[in-house]
Amino acid sequence: MKKLLNDPQDAVTESLDGFELAHADLVEVHRAPLYVSRAGGAVPGKVGLVSGGGAGHEPLHAGFVGAGMLDAAVPGAVFTSPTPDQIVPAILGADSGAGVLAIVKNYTGDVLNFETALELVEAEGTQAASILVNDDVAVEDSLYTAGRRGVAGTVAVEKIAGAAAERGDDLGKVTEIAGRVVANVRSMGVALSACTVPHVGKPSFDLDETEIEIGIGIHGEPGRHRIPMAPADEITGMLVDAVAEDLRLAGGERVLLFVNGMGGTPQSELYVVYRQARRLLEARGVAVTRSLVGNYVTSLEMQGASVTVLRLDDELTALWDAPVHTAALRW
Amino acid sequence: MKKLLNDPQDAVTESLDGFELAHADLVEVHRAPLYVSRAGGAVPGKVGLVSGGGAGHEPLHAGFVGAGMLDAAVPGAVFTSPTPDQIVPAILGADSGAGVLAIVKNYTGDVLNFETALELVEAEGTQAASILVNDDVAVEDSLYTAGRRGVAGTVAVEKIAGAAAERGDDLGKVTEIAGRVVANVRSMGVALSACTVPHVGKPSFDLDETEIEIGIGIHGEPGRHRIPMAPADEITGMLVDAVAEDLRLAGGERVLLFVNGMGGTPQSELYVVYRQARRLLEARGVAVTRSLVGNYVTSLEMQGASVTVLRLDDELTALWDAPVHTAALRW
Repeated sequence: MKKLLNDPQDAVTESLDGFELAHADLVEVHRAPLYVSRAGGAVPGKVGLVSGGGAGHEPLHAGFVGAGMLDAAVPGAVFTSPTPDQIVPAILGADSGAGVLAIVKNYTGDVLNFETALELVEAEGTQAASILVNDDVAVEDSLYTAGRRGVAGTVAVEKIAGAAAERGDDLGKVTEIAGRVVANVRSMGVALSACTVPHVGKPSFDLDETEIEIGIGIHGEPGRHRIPMAPADEITGMLVDAVAEDLRLAGGERVLLFVNGMGGTPQSELYVVYRQARRLLEARGVAVTRSLVGNYVTSLEMQGASVTVLRLDDELTALWDAPVHTAALRW
Repeated sequence: MKKLLNDPQDAVTESLDGFELAHADLVEVHRAPLYVSRAGGAVPGKVGLVSGGGAGHEPLHAGFVGAGMLDAAVPGAVFTSPTPDQIVPAILGADSGAGVLAIVKNYTGDVLNFETALELVEAEGTQAASILVNDDVAVEDSLYTAGRRGVAGTVAVEKIAGAAAERGDDLGKVTEIAGRVVANVRSMGVALSACTVPHVGKPSFDLDETEIEIGIGIHGEPGRHRIPMAPADEITGMLVDAVAEDLRLAGGERVLLFVNGMGGTPQSELYVVYRQARRLLEARGVAVTRSLVGNYVTSLEMQGASVTVLRLDDELTALWDAPVHTAALRW
């Protein structure tokens, strides 16, 4: 295993040390227990937004802490859920009195630990709600999940709910908006290679030199099927068809098209996928009115990509367009 | 070879098709000959800024076309210089009458082809100047270069010269500012793995499972030496020491610290490198007052990173901070 790390056990904390030094204007890293909060703390009167999950998917979630998006992010060890003792202070710190929405990707560990934390903060008098992200259409259940997995669609949930909170919506309305995104966002990915978890030291799975995995999970968990390597347009077609059909996209609708890199794929390839995904959506009469292309929900150095489609309405579009100032997303 | 591409011969054009579709508000892609310009064309009264070079280093250069940075970018085939017939229309299109500065990385093909293009546009009455970027301290000459190579420091040259042009500096002043950046920026990189050029189909070089290459070039050309894999802090020390000594950095100075990913390295590892690079600079009494961490000058899917340090003064800091709106850099 070759990685730019020191002791693999320190990978997450040393990376967050660097993240805090580079972005001291945006974030503060708390160390015992470990979580990341917005510099300056909770914003008075604003609903707090907290997310979290296993590390290894950077910039998710810490890269989305800042104005217009998250108030706090709680990283676990690589591909491992954070614990309630980390989540509780993150939520309490994000609560200015207007309550807190927790955005949880649908993995069994995350769901249980966020549930426990929410019970604890509610017992202390914090008004809290949660929303489950489960945008991955590839499989119904998996190694880490009952029901669909939460993957790249999480970025849209965090951005749009973050904008709703920033404009002053109350907890009920922010939760409703987040739910509207979850109901209208779908994703599917492909892996060309596996990644190596630092403290494991060997690839998470074996993939033949001529094989790819359609419907891969962001921890390398199995997808729908393995097929021989195929041209990008053909692979993109499989992803777009699965997503569009699950969303029941109809002609005349407007969408955000998000092509996400898994971490080890050149940006130039992501644009090749974007090109074909856009053509295929347009061929269905769907208008791509917003776009995002890049590495936002990664699996360490895995080679691959996912296609996410979010059905837009005027309000979701305006919230997507609202200003955001985080380490990974800024406009 | 597994890549998200169709015919490898179409890799650059299909990627630019996607890039243009995703960023139609920012760029226009011209196809015969191939170059990328700012949407809306030359800005009246502003000095034009044009750069270019072989593809495969994305987001460099097309990702930096937009307000506050480049007016045009000219991509060659992967790791291959663009030709004068591409560069000439890019320069002419960027000229609003105030002249054009060409920013050229120091590779023999780029230098020759930009020189030829500059002679041709000058013959047509365009006022043009050029600046050579040669920030890589690793080697004096290499496979593709006489003298030092131009690598990640190019981002600082394009950003800062772009801001100077945007505030209305004339061609002489923009060129002087660009020269000031070149004189004060140094870089060195490390590779953990090779990359595969699509139309070649096999890795550019062989690197043993336990070996890394210190001083790697952005085309995988040899660096200073191969060493056994080492902890990140030790590798970072080699890069920072080489850069700091070449720059003759002294205590009390202020710098921009830029940790650049080669394309296939997880973001979390880049922050581990940033953390140690910053500590080492601070141990020299140097203040890191500006930072950039991410994949900006890549070598396809190569795993590795480079450290770039730019000595700052008040004017360079203000120009770095000036607004920028491109696909890859925005604030």
